[in-house]
Amino acid sequence: DFLNALHEIVPAFGASTDNLERCRQWYGVDFRLNGIVDCGERHKHIFQRAMLLVEQVKVSKGSPLVTCLLEGPSGSGKTAMAATIGIDSDFPYVKIISAETMIGLSESSKSAQIVKVFEDAYKSQLSIIILDDIERLVEYVEVGPRFSNLISQTLLVLLKRLPPKGKNLLVIGTTSAVEVLDSLGIRDAFAVTYRVPRLNTQDAKKVLKALDVFANDHFDAAAEALNNVPIKKLYMVVEMAAQGERGGSSEAIYSGKEKININHFFDCLGDIGTGNQFYN
Amino acid sequence: DFLNALHEIVPAFGASTDNLERCRQWYGVDFRLNGIVDCGERHKHIFQRAMLLVEQVKVSKGSPLVTCLLEGPSGSGKTAMAATIGIDSDFPYVKIISAETMIGLSESSKSAQIVKVFEDAYKSQLSIIILDDIERLVEYVEVGPRFSNLISQTLLVLLKRLPPKGKNLLVIGTTSAVEVLDSLGIRDAFAVTYRVPRLNTQDAKKVLKALDVFANDHFDAAAEALNNVPIKKLYMVVEMAAQGERGGSSEAIYSGKEKININHFFDCLGDIGTGNQFYN
Amino acid sequence: DFLNALHEIVPAFGASTDNLERCRQWYGVDFRLNGIVDCGERHKHIFQRAMLLVEQVKVSKGSPLVTCLLEGPSGSGKTAMAATIGIDSDFPYVKIISAETMIGLSESSKSAQIVKVFEDAYKSQLSIIILDDIERLVEYVEVGPRFSNLISQTLLVLLKRLPPKGKNLLVIGTTSAVEVLDSLGIRDAFAVTYRVPRLNTQDAKKVLKALDVFANDHFDAAAEALNNVPIKKLYMVVEMAAQGERGGSSEAIYSGKEKININHFFDCLGDIGTGNQFYN
Amino acid sequence: DFLNALHEIVPAFGASTDNLERCRQWYGVDFRLNGIVDCGERHKHIFQRAMLLVEQVKVSKGSPLVTCLLEGPSGSGKTAMAATIGIDSDFPYVKIISAETMIGLSESSKSAQIVKVFEDAYKSQLSIIILDDIERLVEYVEVGPRFSNLISQTLLVLLKRLPPKGKNLLVIGTTSAVEVLDSLGIRDAFAVTYRVPRLNTQDAKKVLKALDVFANDHFDAAAEALNNVPIKKLYMVVEMAAQGERGGSSEAIYSGKEKININHFFDCLGDIGTGNQFYN
Amino acid sequence: DFLNALHEIVPAFGASTDNLERCRQWYGVDFRLNGIVDCGERHKHIFQRAMLLVEQVKVSKGSPLVTCLLEGPSGSGKTAMAATIGIDSDFPYVKIISAETMIGLSESSKSAQIVKVFEDAYKSQLSIIILDDIERLVEYVEVGPRFSNLISQTLLVLLKRLPPKGKNLLVIGTTSAVEVLDSLGIRDAFAVTYRVPRLNTQDAKKVLKALDVFANDHFDAAAEALNNVPIKKLYMVVEMAAQGERGGSSEAIYSGKEKININHFFDCLGDIGTGNQFYN
Amino acid sequence: DFLNALHEIVPAFGASTDNLERCRQWYGVDFRLNGIVDCGERHKHIFQRAMLLVEQVKVSKGSPLVTCLLEGPSGSGKTAMAATIGIDSDFPYVKIISAETMIGLSESSKSAQIVKVFEDAYKSQLSIIILDDIERLVEYVEVGPRFSNLISQTLLVLLKRLPPKGKNLLVIGTTSAVEVLDSLGIRDAFAVTYRVPRLNTQDAKKVLKALDVFANDHFDAAAEALNNVPIKKLYMVVEMAAQGERGGSSEAIYSGKEKININHFFDCLGDIGTGNQFYN
Ligand SMILES: Nc1ncnc2c1ncn2[C@@H]1O[C@H](COP(=O)(O)OP(=O)(O)OP(=O)(O)O)[C@@H](O)[C@H]1O
Ligand SMILES: Nc1ncnc2c1ncn2[C@@H]1O[C@H](COP(=O)(O)OP(=O)(O)OP(=O)(O)O)[C@@H](O)[C@H]1O
Ligand SMILES: Nc1ncnc2c1ncn2[C@@H]1O[C@H](COP(=O)(O)OP(=O)(O)OP(=O)(O)O)[C@@H](O)[C@H]1O
Ligand SMILES: Nc1ncnc2c1ncn2[C@@H]1O[C@H](COP(=O)(O)OP(=O)(O)OP(=O)(O)O)[C@@H](O)[C@H]1O
Ligand SMILES: Nc1ncnc2c1ncn2[C@@H]1O[C@H](COP(=O)(O)OP(=O)(O)OP(=O)(O)O)[C@@H](O)[C@H]1O
Ligand SMILES: Nc1ncnc2c1ncn2[C@@H]1O[C@H](COP(=O)(O)OP(=O)(O)OP(=O)(O)O)[C@@H](O)[C@H]1O
Ligand SMILES: [Mg+2]
Ligand SMILES: [Mg+2]
Ligand SMILES: [Mg+2]
Ligand SMILES: [Mg+2]
Ligand SMILES: [Mg+2]
Ligand SMILES: [Mg+2]
Repeated sequence: DFLNALHEIVPAFGASTDNLERCRQWYGVDFRLNGIVDCGERHKHIFQRAMLLVEQVKVSKGSPLVTCLLEGPSGSGKTAMAATIGIDSDFPYVKIISAETMIGLSESSKSAQIVKVFEDAYKSQLSIIILDDIERLVEYVEVGPRFSNLISQTLLVLLKRLPPKGKNLLVIGTTSAVEVLDSLGIRDAFAVTYRVPRLNTQDAKKVLKALDVFANDHFDAAAEALNNVPIKKLYMVVEMAAQGERGGSSEAIYSGKEKININHFFDCLGDIGTGNQFYN
Repeated sequence: DFLNALHEIVPAFGASTDNLERCRQWYGVDFRLNGIVDCGERHKHIFQRAMLLVEQVKVSKGSPLVTCLLEGPSGSGKTAMAATIGIDSDFPYVKIISAETMIGLSESSKSAQIVKVFEDAYKSQLSIIILDDIERLVEYVEVGPRFSNLISQTLLVLLKRLPPKGKNLLVIGTTSAVEVLDSLGIRDAFAVTYRVPRLNTQDAKKVLKALDVFANDHFDAAAEALNNVPIKKLYMVVEMAAQGERGGSSEAIYSGKEKININHFFDCLGDIGTGNQFYN
Repeated sequence: DFLNALHEIVPAFGASTDNLERCRQWYGVDFRLNGIVDCGERHKHIFQRAMLLVEQVKVSKGSPLVTCLLEGPSGSGKTAMAATIGIDSDFPYVKIISAETMIGLSESSKSAQIVKVFEDAYKSQLSIIILDDIERLVEYVEVGPRFSNLISQTLLVLLKRLPPKGKNLLVIGTTSAVEVLDSLGIRDAFAVTYRVPRLNTQDAKKVLKALDVFANDHFDAAAEALNNVPIKKLYMVVEMAAQGERGGSSEAIYSGKEKININHFFDCLGDIGTGNQFYN
Repeated sequence: DFLNALHEIVPAFGASTDNLERCRQWYGVDFRLNGIVDCGERHKHIFQRAMLLVEQVKVSKGSPLVTCLLEGPSGSGKTAMAATIGIDSDFPYVKIISAETMIGLSESSKSAQIVKVFEDAYKSQLSIIILDDIERLVEYVEVGPRFSNLISQTLLVLLKRLPPKGKNLLVIGTTSAVEVLDSLGIRDAFAVTYRVPRLNTQDAKKVLKALDVFANDHFDAAAEALNNVPIKKLYMVVEMAAQGERGGSSEAIYSGKEKININHFFDCLGDIGTGNQFYN
Repeated sequence: DFLNALHEIVPAFGASTDNLERCRQWYGVDFRLNGIVDCGERHKHIFQRAMLLVEQVKVSKGSPLVTCLLEGPSGSGKTAMAATIGIDSDFPYVKIISAETMIGLSESSKSAQIVKVFEDAYKSQLSIIILDDIERLVEYVEVGPRFSNLISQTLLVLLKRLPPKGKNLLVIGTTSAVEVLDSLGIRDAFAVTYRVPRLNTQDAKKVLKALDVFANDHFDAAAEALNNVPIKKLYMVVEMAAQGERGGSSEAIYSGKEKININHFFDCLGDIGTGNQFYN
Repeated sequence: DFLNALHEIVPAFGASTDNLERCRQWYGVDFRLNGIVDCGERHKHIFQRAMLLVEQVKVSKGSPLVTCLLEGPSGSGKTAMAATIGIDSDFPYVKIISAETMIGLSESSKSAQIVKVFEDAYKSQLSIIILDDIERLVEYVEVGPRFSNLISQTLLVLLKRLPPKGKNLLVIGTTSAVEVLDSLGIRDAFAVTYRVPRLNTQDAKKVLKALDVFANDHFDAAAEALNNVPIKKLYMVVEMAAQGERGGSSEAIYSGKEKININHFFDCLGDIGTGNQFYN
């Protein structure tokens, strides 16, 4: 299951090819708790469905191209999940296309690089391509709005073009701006879409239990306050709170000698905002 | 008739020239059931009318240029039908112009390549040119909106320019964004327009019968649920459902040993969406 | 009169210079009934008025530059009429400027080519320049809207610049988007504007009589159905209908052995649309 | 006075320098009636005021730069008046800047050419520069709207920059789109603006009397019908009408043997439109 | 005071360095009455405040950069005042940046030239830079609107960047489109803004008294009519009126032998417009 | 605390590396009162929170990238605070990215320079990068609006890209146009945002006390008038007022011999505007 899959990430990465190594770079999981956290039923369900698509691509002869979009609020764990799917697939060709490795390139260079990854994938019998943060890949900005139509058109065609006979490809996209992808016609180009949600109180409890930084008395209040917070923000606020009001207390807390001051934790949560206002 | 025409696709392709071979590449039919499915009366009617245009081009001396647009929801079978017409025409020159083979090219290169195909056609006595997914050819995107006016103007002129004396040409366009083509003035440039619809319950029944993957008890319910679904989505959802809830069951189903679990089928249909919301 | 003028088109073309030969290329008349059809009073009236302008340019010393715009619905016969005027003028220099011969050229090349035609005309004592489909020459598209301001400005200046002393020039423009030319200021640059209409029932009767493909019983019903249809659509629908519902009957019909099935004719008219919705 | 000034145009041009010769090219007056027509009190008044500005530039030491805009409906006689002022000024440097001689040039070439004319003028003690049809110089089109900001900015600066000490310059602009010049800030850059009107009935009578092509009985009706018509349209409609309904009568009319058929004249006036709808 | 300062302009210019000589070029004052006119209390007050800023820059150690904007209706005397401040400052480095000397340059050349002037100023201990007519420098036009964002951004940064230690700089901007500068964020970048007004009746009286061209009986009426007129328009209308209705009278008037005809003066004022409608 | 931190700025700068020296250039504090002013509780609180982030970056292993935005009205002290944090951090790599050092560069050069600073930071174990005045870095202007999407996209990616393992980075942004950053999606890319306010009456009192330029009787009135004024404007108005109404008094005031005339102070405050209208 998903949890187990997550457990296997680090070794999988460790034993991975160059391509997967490059993935690790953007993958922050291993900096925290060895990347192993159960984020609740909803995340697990999506993960399982996505793994069925992996199987479909592997066994079926009628699905040379399957495309799946993971959308959801910023920091909810989409990229982490896409990477986990890639690692668990055991496909010979797994590649991530991300704006981070194409910084400062011209539109046409970016487009060419994207095409190249697909052309390479067409040579492998089983491939996965992750299009990470598609709104960033197409350089979208709401003001205007502006974006690269060249890259956008390239994606639209690639998401529909069938691989050559006998080659099967799974494309996983991620985005935290699904309405943008809608307006660009990119969302429709995906066969399936799953929404990766923020944590609810139950999910947050599971993560906090794993972290074990709150006193028992404050555990429920902390989890309650974290309802509807993306997992990324949960990590950030816990680390901020761990410094203590005057600094210097983080070592004591992570070693378990002290617990986080719940009031300071609420202060930090206020500073950081929950981001709830931006995504429903 | 249309059904028979479809039956002949594979051999036609097999015996085809280089040009037609290249067509096969984008043509997914041969990956499934040998591409032979009867999609109902409405598809058949359109196909017959289009074949009359083929004949008109062949026998008449007054119609050196006939233009016909196949429009309809995404995945409803427009490209497949256009290809079938091209194959069944037995014309010496049949060519498809598609964004897939022009990925990443500049507007002017694309425009030049399109002109080249027409110039070549003018040399043959009887020709068919398929302009596939015209909104993609002109790089249209709703945001802005943006598109290539160069390519758009090129099409507008080519759709009206008469071939030299004694040469006859049928142009078939396809699009799933007919209102876009309207606003670009491209729709008006076609003499005839036919709408290729999604499957209705009756049509779906015919396809499901050919596939034979549901238990008799569930057959009607499945067909009912597939009302107003494009044929492309029908294939995708059947393949998804065939994996079973936990994976691994597809072989048993395609070999006929097992039938698809109807509840899992409904789940998959939910995941995939019917696309009904986007096109009326 | 106009009808007689039309009768003389083919020989006129046959005896024409290179320039006029090139005109024949876009002129579809000779593919049908030797291009000789009386389209009714309204067409004839416009033609006569335009021929008066030809005479004015020829005899007057005060009109070195006369400009005249033929506007009207798509396919109503504007280009055919402009060509007829050019041929009947017997002027030593008659040239058509059309987007069809400038496909794929850059804005500045197109502009230069247009200027060149005018400069050449300035060398002849009597000249006619036909600016065919001006909205296409300026690459207009409603979305945006976009168009070539370079070409547009070039036309605006050329339509006002007087030829050198002793040289007289008639410029005939055609357009099916007169409101566009209005917004670009190009319509105002023409001294006279005539609207070339679609056929009315009477006009249609004349054309159908010449074609002689309907049984007497159906003649009036057919003409009635063709009220407000452009002549171009009339030809197309007759040829479609002539194939018969199952194909193969056109030879019998054109040879006069059979008549067109009136119901199939109505079907074809439905397929083709009358275009009435787009132009009032 | 203005009439006398007009009388002197042709000889003035005949005896003129290269610069003034070039002016003749765009100046249609000499094609008709030797360019000598009294257009009524309002034209005369504007002409006199403008000639006072010429004198001011000549005698005053405090007005090194005087700028004056002639605006009014298309064809009302603005360019003719500006040219007359230039000729009558007897200034050593009189130059017209017109879009007609800069057709097809890039924005920057046009801008450079305009600057060059001003730089040349700065070398002469007394100069006149005519900026003819400024909306055309700045390549303005209402759709968008689009125009050349480079040329526009160049004009804005040149219209304010003082010539070097001891050099005096009068700039006369013409435009039939004064509201455009307003929106570009160019109108404000002129010190004085005069509106050159269309002819009223009285003015038209004077012109018709000079032409002498109507029978006495029809004279008043013709003049009445020409109320609020620009002089350019008056000439055009008279020449059209002179051909007669069936052509061939113009020689008889201009030689005085026949008079224009008043009904045909009204027909022609209808064809040509009065242009009243476009400018108030 | 301001009046005295104005009195000293001409000698100051005469004795000035190359830089200040170049300033004289755009400065029309010396063409009229030796440039010495008292424009009333409001102008004087602004001038005094600005001179305090000059002193602040000179003596203070905490104000290395002081920025001041003079805004007001077209022709109200802003550039003249800025130049006077520059001359009276006796600073070793005084430079004017004006669109007049950068005509036809590309945006980047203009931007580079502006930066160069600032870099040079940073080398002098005390400097004044005049940014004349900032809306013209940034090539602003209301239609669009369009402007040079490159130049705009350059100004925004330069107006905030502190000179190196020990170097002090006063930047004076002028504009007659302060709302434009507001929308570009340039107005906010100035520390202080003063509005230079049109003349009121009192101010106009002072100027007319100095000019002495009206009969005593008409003096008050003339001044009254000049209420809310910019000084530039006052000069223009007086010179126009001095020519007399039929020309030729200006010498007599300036020599004092005759006075201006008050009715002709009102006529001229009508011709010229007061510009009141454009700025409140 | 913050006050103490400010006390240490000058020596810190004095002893700083090249990088920090370059910072001093834009940092005006040392021109006034040795840069040491206590701006009240709200500034102090923000400073302390920001210093906790510095510590978090230093000690934690789970926060390789922390991002913090200081937003607030123009002149409220954001850049000064960011610089103070950089100096007090004692991190080996502290760099400021400012539009001032990139004036006139092309978008792509600016983008490349920004990337370079991040790449350099990735080589140091502990780094701080200050993105000063982000709306200026992206060349934003409200008219249009226009901005550099290239630079904007570069920042969006850099603000999310994790440094290589073992390298920790704190990014501090400043802006006085937070709503712009919102619309560009840049604000969301920061983990924490603090608003740096204008001074309130209490804060102003502290600053005025340190300056000691008002008589005791006027102290409260002056502070009251400075409520809601940014610290930058406070300095400017005090220096203006110190010149006295007729100039020349500043030395006496700074040496303590005289006090500022409170009425002249109010006048200057009026001239300068409080800027309250632009930011709430
Ligand atoms: N199941 C998980 N277990 C542990 N850590 C996780 C898990 N899912 C996500 N994370 C961590 O949470 C953070 C955010 O996850 P991730 O980057 O995948 O989110 P995202 O939705 O892609 O965010 P963005 O919208 O910014 O792209 C990362 O540091 C990631 O390592
Ligand atoms: N009559 C048919 N028999 C069998 N398969 C068909 C038939 N029509 C279409 N298909 C299959 O259905 C899928 C969708 O068809 P096709 O690509 O022609 O649709 P489309 O309308 O062109 O879609 P799009 O809008 O995406 O361009 C293809 O895989 C095609 O092979
Ligand atoms: N009087 C006529 N007699 C015979 N055929 C005609 C006549 N007028 C037009 N046609 C034919 O009708 C068709 C349409 O005419 P034409 O191309 O001139 O129309 P149009 O108004 O220019 O169309 P478009 O708006 O597409 O440019 C052509 O094939 C032409 O040959
Ligand atoms: N006073 C006149 N006497 C004789 N002919 C005149 C007179 N004024 C104008 N014309 C003639 O009338 C025609 C139109 O005049 P002109 O070109 O000066 O008008 P315009 O206002 O500049 O037109 P446009 O708006 O098209 O630039 C020209 O042929 C010109 O020669
Ligand atoms: N105090 C003054 N005494 C005499 N002449 C003056 C005075 N102020 C301005 N002028 C003159 O008035 C005219 C307009 O002044 P100036 O060019 O400074 O105005 P402006 O506000 O800068 O105008 P614009 O808005 O066009 O830039 C100039 O000719 C100038 O010489
Ligand atoms: N705490 C302080 N003590 C002394 N001077 C200060 C303090 N904070 C700011 N200043 C001074 O106030 C002025 C404005 O500060 P700063 O430039 O940091 O403001 P800002 O908010 O960055 O302004 P902007 O919005 O223009 O970028 C500077 O001269 C700075 O030196
Ligand atoms: Mg992500
Ligand atoms: Mg298709
Ligand atoms: Mg035509
Ligand atoms: Mg003109
Ligand atoms: Mg000025
Ligand atoms: Mg700052």
